[in-house]
Amino acid sequence: MNRVYISEVARHESEEVTLKGWLYNLRSSGKILFPQIRDGSGIIQGVVVRAEAAPEVWSALESLPQESSIMVSGKIRKEPRAPGGFEIDISGVEVVQTAEPYPITKKEHGTEFLMDHRHLWLRSRRQHAILRVRHEVIRAVRDYFDDRGFVLCDTPIFTPAACEGTTTLFEVNYFEDTKAYLTQSGQLYNEATAAAFGKTYCFGPTFRAEKSKTRRHLTEFWMVEPEVAYATLDDIMKLAEDFLTSIVARVLDRRREELKVLERDTSRLEKVAPPFPRLQYDEAVRTLHEAGMPFEWGGDFGAPDETYLSEKYEKPVIVHRFPAKVKAFYMAPDEARPELALGADVLAPEGYGEVIGGGERIASLDLLRKRIAEHSLPEEAFDWYLDLRRYGSVPHGGFGMGIERCVAWICALEHIRETIPFPRMLYRLKP
Amino acid sequence: MNRVYISEVARHESEEVTLKGWLYNLRSSGKILFPQIRDGSGIIQGVVVRAEAAPEVWSALESLPQESSIMVSGKIRKEPRAPGGFEIDISGVEVVQTAEPYPITKKEHGTEFLMDHRHLWLRSRRQHAILRVRHEVIRAVRDYFDDRGFVLCDTPIFTPAACEGTTTLFEVNYFEDTKAYLTQSGQLYNEATAAAFGKTYCFGPTFRAEKSKTRRHLTEFWMVEPEVAYATLDDIMKLAEDFLTSIVARVLDRRREELKVLERDTSRLEKVAPPFPRLQYDEAVRTLHEAGMPFEWGGDFGAPDETYLSEKYEKPVIVHRFPAKVKAFYMAPDEARPELALGADVLAPEGYGEVIGGGERIASLDLLRKRIAEHSLPEEAFDWYLDLRRYGSVPHGGFGMGIERCVAWICALEHIRETIPFPRMLYRLKP
Repeated sequence: MNRVYISEVARHESEEVTLKGWLYNLRSSGKILFPQIRDGSGIIQGVVVRAEAAPEVWSALESLPQESSIMVSGKIRKEPRAPGGFEIDISGVEVVQTAEPYPITKKEHGTEFLMDHRHLWLRSRRQHAILRVRHEVIRAVRDYFDDRGFVLCDTPIFTPAACEGTTTLFEVNYFEDTKAYLTQSGQLYNEATAAAFGKTYCFGPTFRAEKSKTRRHLTEFWMVEPEVAYATLDDIMKLAEDFLTSIVARVLDRRREELKVLERDTSRLEKVAPPFPRLQYDEAVRTLHEAGMPFEWGGDFGAPDETYLSEKYEKPVIVHRFPAKVKAFYMAPDEARPELALGADVLAPEGYGEVIGGGERIASLDLLRKRIAEHSLPEEAFDWYLDLRRYGSVPHGGFGMGIERCVAWICALEHIRETIPFPRMLYRLKP
Repeated sequence: MNRVYISEVARHESEEVTLKGWLYNLRSSGKILFPQIRDGSGIIQGVVVRAEAAPEVWSALESLPQESSIMVSGKIRKEPRAPGGFEIDISGVEVVQTAEPYPITKKEHGTEFLMDHRHLWLRSRRQHAILRVRHEVIRAVRDYFDDRGFVLCDTPIFTPAACEGTTTLFEVNYFEDTKAYLTQSGQLYNEATAAAFGKTYCFGPTFRAEKSKTRRHLTEFWMVEPEVAYATLDDIMKLAEDFLTSIVARVLDRRREELKVLERDTSRLEKVAPPFPRLQYDEAVRTLHEAGMPFEWGGDFGAPDETYLSEKYEKPVIVHRFPAKVKAFYMAPDEARPELALGADVLAPEGYGEVIGGGERIASLDLLRKRIAEHSLPEEAFDWYLDLRRYGSVPHGGFGMGIERCVAWICALEHIRETIPFPRMLYRLKP
């Protein structure tokens, strides 16, 4: 019989089909069984009337444990009251495997329990919704850059030296006493590829050995980083604004159902449109002071500061021109006020904090060497990077966006750990 | 003035535009300068006639070193003899940075020298062509699965235990004496996500600490791995065949220019179409014996064997049903001949060897436990994986394709190291 996926049943109304999936749930009135079947593409309710069904169909389903794998045959029937609009009148069942008692039940489970059973928890409706939004975000990210002439240039995971601080690097035993470090950012490499291709991006996993146990941190997370030659800070802020708007619009367009499952207030997402408010660091500090928050000019914002600032606006807000000394060595200074760096962070609304960080890089060979010395970094490790200023240096910039933070915000999740199939955290390396 | 990218000049014929890029090459007749300008999106030839040009334009360009960054203004003119069909009559030049003498010259450089200067070498026409083909392959891979209802489920890079042998694993110092290992394959995790989503794929970097210095090996490479619930070996072979055909067709469709730069014989690629010849392992061994090659039944094919087999066919060839003992513990046995595993490798033509490897996985809990014991693997490390057989086990399978091998074949490259922006090998961790 014709095997179809549940996502396709609308095209098979009144046809006899076979579904291959799992028993998601089972209700019974004593006279009628209502098995819910899932196959990964969707969920459909089946109907078996005792008085009409073959006895072996009834008995196969009657007490079948949840998550048993089954192939069911029957006729697809339109049913306006059903969530997907269709039901299946089951005429045949083949049990592929009878499941052991399923550990995830309707009762409340603790997070640790669910995380230990992540390989099974992924089968739930809510996790499906989140991971489909994640998939859509990733597609939207790639389409955005691919459609605009950016060339994907994967940057290496194994790096010989640190891009930013070394304390949060994971060390790998490479070969014969050589150490390698797992990348924290592809940016330095992006600067080389942007000088080759004009507009580039990298997109892959990045790693931070931070000993923090907050709801915003993973040790392994995915980041997309575009880099543009001949771009100034203003160009980069515009790019970030346009990019983020397009990601949110895409999810709203294609993942309404999933956002509904997550009970996401989409009116908040619909407000994401250019222009985003832009706030100089100075003004941001003033705003914090006016709210009576203790914050010293010159520092980097902490999570509570970001939360406060982002909650003040309905849209994402861009904070720019930070004190140079809290930012990375490669950030270009503001010519008007050299103590400021031409960096910009985009803070998501609703208290989600930084989703994008970037800015303009130093183009001058002399200044870059000076900064490397000031930061006590070994110049020989950056010799190739300095080459980019020796051979056709141009103003350039870019940004990085962490996929998981973006997904957490779009889905309005409490904790980032549900935004990735198998999260890795300080005390979480399994399954 | 209107800034345009070189890839867009056809839309600006007879207009005055500004190009922002780098000096790629400079020829002079004494009376006319022909600077070639690149901006990452393309290369265009400029023309400056001494008798007509402003003296400062001539003098700025006249002895400008290669790879200096420049902004040039002028009128776009149709020129059928030019490679891109257009030239620019330069009326203004701004030199952004005068490059130091460029280390990569027209003379033959050794591979080590070029690899040490990979960050600059990427600017060459040939490297551009390869990396644009790579980008196209990656887009084609994602589009293929996205368009067919596969859900992207990124699998973890940090894994607690080995999927296959442990000798080729990179070890990472996680936190407080905990060791993690860098993934060699997302497959085990894919089996969990396929049971959740029906059809899934992962796509990310994978790592092998192999001490081999062949032209086919990188320590860090990108792999795409689909996994399908309710799929048999035959389904997987069909999927692999259809998938690979679509990738090649996409590159032929969109990257003809790049293949021309690489002097690729595209007639060979045009032959890639279903059905691919299918060869049982037994027949493959016979074929080797008939050719007088020493090969013992029961072993795994080496590079020379794969090369010989793949050169016998115009299309990719699928070899299937290998001796179980040379294959991974999770491979399903052939019911008709249990000493054979339901695995399949796709060998690329022209001697490029294995590009795809996959097969059907064991669905039975008892058999899987037995195999784990036979392979002396610690069962507790696989407890979550065994859960997939306890709760709704189904026949299922998938495959993995290494992006770099695929790109090397499509571009007909001698060595895999040029298929990735910053290759990592046994003795290569820089830049």
